Amino acid sequence: MNVQPILDLFGAELVAVNLGLESFAANLASEGARAVHVDWRPPAGGDGKAIAALDAIAAGTTVDVEKANAEAVRRILAAEPTVVGIGVAKDVVPGMARDLILHAGPPVTWERMCGPLRGAVIGGLIYEGLAKDAAEAEAMAASGKVRFEPCHHHDSVGPMAGVMTASMPVWIVENKAFGNRAYCTLNEGLGKVLRYGAYSAEVIDRLRWMRDELAPILSEALALHGPVDMRSLIAQVLQMGDEGHNRNRAGTSIVIRELAPHIVTLDYPKEKLAKALAFLNSNDHFFLNLTMPSAKCSVDAAAGIEGSTIITTMARNGTEFGIKLSGLPGRWFTGPAGVIDGLYLPGYGPADASRDIGDSVITETSGIGGFAMAAAPAIVKFVGGSPKDAVDVTMRMYEITDAESESYRIPVLDFRGTPTGIDVRKVVETGILPAINTGIAHKDPGVGMVGAGLVKPPENAFRDALVAFAEKYAI
Amino acid sequence: MNVQPILDLFGAELVAVNLGLESFAANLASEGARAVHVDWRPPAGGDGKAIAALDAIAAGTTVDVEKANAEAVRRILAAEPTVVGIGVAKDVVPGMARDLILHAGPPVTWERMCGPLRGAVIGGLIYEGLAKDAAEAEAMAASGKVRFEPCHHHDSVGPMAGVMTASMPVWIVENKAFGNRAYCTLNEGLGKVLRYGAYSAEVIDRLRWMRDELAPILSEALALHGPVDMRSLIAQVLQMGDEGHNRNRAGTSIVIRELAPHIVTLDYPKEKLAKALAFLNSNDHFFLNLTMPSAKCSVDAAAGIEGSTIITTMARNGTEFGIKLSGLPGRWFTGPAGVIDGLYLPGYGPADASRDIGDSVITETSGIGGFAMAAAPAIVKFVGGSPKDAVDVTMRMYEITDAESESYRIPVLDFRGTPTGIDVRKVVETGILPAINTGIAHKDPGVGMVGAGLVKPPENAFRDALVAFAEKYAI
Repeated sequence: MNVQPILDLFGAELVAVNLGLESFAANLASEGARAVHVDWRPPAGGDGKAIAALDAIAAGTTVDVEKANAEAVRRILAAEPTVVGIGVAKDVVPGMARDLILHAGPPVTWERMCGPLRGAVIGGLIYEGLAKDAAEAEAMAASGKVRFEPCHHHDSVGPMAGVMTASMPVWIVENKAFGNRAYCTLNEGLGKVLRYGAYSAEVIDRLRWMRDELAPILSEALALHGPVDMRSLIAQVLQMGDEGHNRNRAGTSIVIRELAPHIVTLDYPKEKLAKALAFLNSNDHFFLNLTMPSAKCSVDAAAGIEGSTIITTMARNGTEFGIKLSGLPGRWFTGPAGVIDGLYLPGYGPADASRDIGDSVITETSGIGGFAMAAAPAIVKFVGGSPKDAVDVTMRMYEITDAESESYRIPVLDFRGTPTGIDVRKVVETGILPAINTGIAHKDPGVGMVGAGLVKPPENAFRDALVAFAEKYAI
Repeated sequence: MNVQPILDLFGAELVAVNLGLESFAANLASEGARAVHVDWRPPAGGDGKAIAALDAIAAGTTVDVEKANAEAVRRILAAEPTVVGIGVAKDVVPGMARDLILHAGPPVTWERMCGPLRGAVIGGLIYEGLAKDAAEAEAMAASGKVRFEPCHHHDSVGPMAGVMTASMPVWIVENKAFGNRAYCTLNEGLGKVLRYGAYSAEVIDRLRWMRDELAPILSEALALHGPVDMRSLIAQVLQMGDEGHNRNRAGTSIVIRELAPHIVTLDYPKEKLAKALAFLNSNDHFFLNLTMPSAKCSVDAAAGIEGSTIITTMARNGTEFGIKLSGLPGRWFTGPAGVIDGLYLPGYGPADASRDIGDSVITETSGIGGFAMAAAPAIVKFVGGSPKDAVDVTMRMYEITDAESESYRIPVLDFRGTPTGIDVRKVVETGILPAINTGIAHKDPGVGMVGAGLVKPPENAFRDALVAFAEKYAI
């Protein structure tokens, strides 16, 4: 036996090629040896059931998945979200009723609700006059006398706690290409606000002012202005440093400049008009509650396509994160809501934080928000990280999406369209999870916002959805 | 003699290193040979007088140039431009008079004025009621009965033709750190407007409406709002895709949202307030006439520092481009105005274009505008090029400036400060000319805007300034 080649091997400089755990390569390097680390993960993180589902789908399905996804993506890209008016929830939101409280995310019972969602429910009951204080509201919530359902079950979306009650004013956004509508409350600003779980008198008074003055003023101004083409507006704000989820300064500015010439003509006392305009100017997140229903009605048009693996809903209620697939309509796949990695307001830290909450991830589902972070480098001052991180986030999202937007373009990527149409197969296979940026609510009811950051959704929700898809469609 | 090394040379593969004309390397490459091109230019483009001036200044000066420049740059960076009000030119602009017409750029006689400047002068005389039509205005302009002086000689700046007449309303911007002020007319919008040389009834009517309604409304709203911190505003808009010269959509939006709550309270008929707000909303360049006097009062504080090679003025009148150095106050150094490389409105082309015109290059002089193009990638849709070009432009400007802004930061460059304080020595030595983006006026009086693009200033203006500096300061 000629052992020379083997001896030669040990005579030459050794370079280790390391797959998997990076720490093995780091250990070698720390000992002075050379090691090349290959960033590799097994498909689906090595999860046997998920790999089997991927294989089964690849082997053959009862419906052509590629064709189904192409149709889903076509519908998302063709959406024409348009603000057509402001109404009162009980008048316009399908199925809305006085004893019904809508909330963000997948279904959840009062017992399992997180602090900020409980806080928002308490505030909602006080606001509606159904309870006179927190104690009475909690008792009522626990009694079964009020019903809780997801906004998503009523063509609606709500940021953070996402609580919508019967008398709240809501934006009405219509997808002109498909005729479906979506609804969302008006944004209250940051800090001590209902959607972050605060319910003090200041919060309730603001909500009532929004119902009694702000909404009528905006509604009348909007009627004079005419419908607002949100596709055009979102396209513009992506050129102005917004991404439509946690940075909305440009969008809010444009809404103000478009409506102000009409607001000034309305038959209200000047100080009421001034208060409305000052409120808008003070609230850079005002536009969020327009991008959200725009995103909602855009992806809703792609729901229910037989054989499609495109994700049409992502949402969190602070306890669970859930998704829905186009090809499995009506079914939620959930996992525990994530812990947010972010920047905190002075005086607060991670120990104060509630878990990931809100329907605002509908923006990412439609291809903006975290998916368009490269367009909004300044957002890192709000959610943490560097501008390069923001670009990296967007670039990664191209790995798990089937298309690029023809309308929403990112200047710094040479006007490349935003990554659109999340394919659950790609998420599971690559282990790349949708990038979500979000606000952080205090974990206790009644406090409010404490920060903002980035969060990872639970991988099992995506794997479970894929497995269910394979069960239904694999031959 | 051992010729082997030389023979070895010809035996090995040859790689040519090419300095100077790039075409030599390209020729070799086209023949299949390898050539490495080194991008090299002789200092000052090989200009003997300029090289001698650079050498003389480097050898020794009567005043410490580095110290003088550090002071000039300190003052530019410390500027606190603040909008304090709106006045009428003849009441607030130093030396303004009824028979005086201010214009953009260095001094120029009627005979040498370009078409759009003549057009704006004609319009200005009609607007002031000094002439009843174009023929009468032209005769008056040629008669010597009206005087022409640069805006810059009256603490003022004007975009494009830059014509300011006695009864025009002007923004008053005060540099709170140094107490000096700068003035600028209100922006009229794009298209058929005075500053692009148009003077039809529509143009004059708009100017009179601006004087009689818009300016009083804005002035009263501004008084209610309080002074506007332009340093903060410019810092913000650089995070929102503006660069403060040819992209001002974010800045205009913020001015509207700040003033609208006050405008709505004013004691004017509603339709007049609505018309004012609709005009602002229709004119994304409105903010330009605020960034310009902000830049002007910022760099003016750095003028007149003995021994400083920092450029404190750049300006063009459509015939000539001129600069001033801090250390040579009161002296213009000029060259022929450049031809603009840009995008044209439908129906127009390069043959229709006037040469480079306007005081708006004061924005670049202060470190924004073209110098901050990396912050405004979407501007390439207006002036041409790609987002990468926009970044490259900004990166080159660091080569000819002495400092980086502490307030004005570029997200995509990891919040690096904008290149600030142009050092004429660096411009001449490197041959890197200040990057300027600009609108394009039609070459004939009375037409208006035809496009926008990028323009190179004439190199000789910088070389002449450097030679004059050496004559005064070199030992």
